[in-house]
Amino acid sequence: MRKVAVIGVGCSKVGELWDKALKDLSTESSLRALDNAGMSKIDSIYVGNALALTLLNQGNIGTTVADSLGFRGTPAISVEASDASGGLAFHEAVKSVAAGWSDTVLVTGVEKMSDASPAQVAKALMSSEDQEYTAFTGVTVGGLHGLILRLYLTRFKVKHEDIAFFAVNAHKNAVNNPSAQFRNPLTVDDVLNSLLVADPLRLLESSSVADGAASVILCPLEKAKKFTDTPIEVLASTVATDSLNFVEHEDLLTFESTRISAQKAYAEGKISPPDIDLVETNDSSTIMGVIALEDLGFVEKGKGASLVKEGDIAIDGKLPTNTMGGSKGRGHPIGATGVYQLVEIVKQLRAEAGKNQVANAQIGLAHCVGGMGSYSVVNILRRS
Amino acid sequence: MRKVAVIGVGCSKVGELWDKALKDLSTESSLRALDNAGMSKIDSIYVGNALALTLLNQGNIGTTVADSLGFRGTPAISVEASDASGGLAFHEAVKSVAAGWSDTVLVTGVEKMSDASPAQVAKALMSSEDQEYTAFTGVTVGGLHGLILRLYLTRFKVKHEDIAFFAVNAHKNAVNNPSAQFRNPLTVDDVLNSLLVADPLRLLESSSVADGAASVILCPLEKAKKFTDTPIEVLASTVATDSLNFVEHEDLLTFESTRISAQKAYAEGKISPPDIDLVETNDSSTIMGVIALEDLGFVEKGKGASLVKEGDIAIDGKLPTNTMGGSKGRGHPIGATGVYQLVEIVKQLRAEAGKNQVANAQIGLAHCVGGMGSYSVVNILRRS
Repeated sequence: MRKVAVIGVGCSKVGELWDKALKDLSTESSLRALDNAGMSKIDSIYVGNALALTLLNQGNIGTTVADSLGFRGTPAISVEASDASGGLAFHEAVKSVAAGWSDTVLVTGVEKMSDASPAQVAKALMSSEDQEYTAFTGVTVGGLHGLILRLYLTRFKVKHEDIAFFAVNAHKNAVNNPSAQFRNPLTVDDVLNSLLVADPLRLLESSSVADGAASVILCPLEKAKKFTDTPIEVLASTVATDSLNFVEHEDLLTFESTRISAQKAYAEGKISPPDIDLVETNDSSTIMGVIALEDLGFVEKGKGASLVKEGDIAIDGKLPTNTMGGSKGRGHPIGATGVYQLVEIVKQLRAEAGKNQVANAQIGLAHCVGGMGSYSVVNILRRS
Repeated sequence: MRKVAVIGVGCSKVGELWDKALKDLSTESSLRALDNAGMSKIDSIYVGNALALTLLNQGNIGTTVADSLGFRGTPAISVEASDASGGLAFHEAVKSVAAGWSDTVLVTGVEKMSDASPAQVAKALMSSEDQEYTAFTGVTVGGLHGLILRLYLTRFKVKHEDIAFFAVNAHKNAVNNPSAQFRNPLTVDDVLNSLLVADPLRLLESSSVADGAASVILCPLEKAKKFTDTPIEVLASTVATDSLNFVEHEDLLTFESTRISAQKAYAEGKISPPDIDLVETNDSSTIMGVIALEDLGFVEKGKGASLVKEGDIAIDGKLPTNTMGGSKGRGHPIGATGVYQLVEIVKQLRAEAGKNQVANAQIGLAHCVGGMGSYSVVNILRRS
């Protein structure tokens, strides 16, 4: 298998973009990535999208993205794994280049959520859980996050304010990200005094409805220098599943799919957690981010909150996390998020992250989660 | 890249299966394929599904299939390309084995349509067309098929009864397929006197609502003999797109995506149309099947109807087509159809097709189409 590199990145702004359709967003970010790679043609396209079928009744997403970009004829493969769709699209694209099946691949994650009503979005988000069991109870994704937050606070005797800092860190980083949805700083008090979503989960520790698209261009590492002075190597790319029903997880506060995919990724990349210079992970709510850092192996179970509280996840901390704002600050256009994470890591590894630059960043890990941890994709990138 | 072989196949019955959920169907067919390969474990799973998000609000389909099969943890990748989803899942799985990323892969196409109302299904089927243009006019898929049927009959001065024979052939073959939805023979008169769907298209030349799942197991060709005496080699696997809007096709009666993917497949397999011993193609309506045979290169444009009329597509004809009943007779559970086609070709190439056996079948071509030809997947298999 060939080694693979990222040679171009681009994205649209994240937000409630009333004047832009799904096709406008995917085209905008794809063209920016092509431009960034100095390229006008590609062999094939991978698309990550989670909700176009439910919210827009738009299927055939591969064709939708290829055609609006002006690439009729080009193979375009659309994958779905709820919030992890973007990371999965990248994973499949990496395989295609590694296999020698494609030489230049565009990966675009795209989501258009703001055209639907809040009730439609709430129902659509629950599509990641079992419709015959968890969803049937009427619980929402916010409700499930509230449930594990309460369990975490109780079992590990952690204060809510420690975890709330995850959102404060995210907003702080989003201030300097021109593509971010929320560029206002937050305090822990702001978070803890915001509206209740599902007791004890608060509004300002949960990601919001968002539209957006992000894209990267891949090619074999050996050819990457033709396109860029700073190719970013794909060191590992892994996927794992768990039970679809959240309540069937062996432990509600451990996401097995994350543990499996992370361990496989470290083995594949011949590295271990201390080698990672920065992390982009799912913080669709604060508690999801905390659990992720534990299951990725950065800290033992139950200690994630201390990592957050002590500032280790800040840009100048030991484990800079969600350096461009994460799902909370940059925004969480579901199926696009996994590709946004990769765009942001590439910018860090190229030392193009501006005021949010992590000093001497060499290796970055992107982690996205589908459902309540029932799906996980880990991608690890290294400055080549 | 490694050569890839099919070493196991299985499927559920096709029909309105009121007592079976999507998970029951995917599990049933997956277990049958594993059993057929004499295998109890696989490295990864590929899933083709088109409508679970719209009709059942079920996303995270990879996890859904892996978990219900008892394979928690295993990577499971779900792809979508409307009616071509099953063929696309196979395509991605082939890449994964060819690349050396996986050694044993399960591919399952699954669809559960009968729980939804006819109006919901009609809307869901239109998800393959542009929601901002074609779908916005209110036309249905049946309406579009009626439109191209009329255009074809007019432009090429063809009699409707010639094309109607496509459905007669399909039902004749379905009689001997125990998994088929419709096992009753039809006459051309039956077809032409059935209810109008969209003038001139008739009910009995259109596929129906169906549930079903089909599965195949892949491994590297060099290891295939460990599992089976008759490994079936994957000779070519290709994908192409066209404009999402049907009305923007350069010619309404030519499906460019089919032409491109077929030509690439013949080049990849180093063969030409006369080398093909049997074809499985999309006949969601008779006219789609006729156009497909033309664009696949078996007969020149406008001459497909004569091929059909003269009996060349019969099991003992020059180009046996849809030998187990096709979308019309076997049934068309949208996202599963592409995998059913492959299961049926494998049975033919293994000489296990019973009364419908094509004599001395060595090479078979499976072709599935997304939307009105805006997506096409061609897979070619050869008895090894």
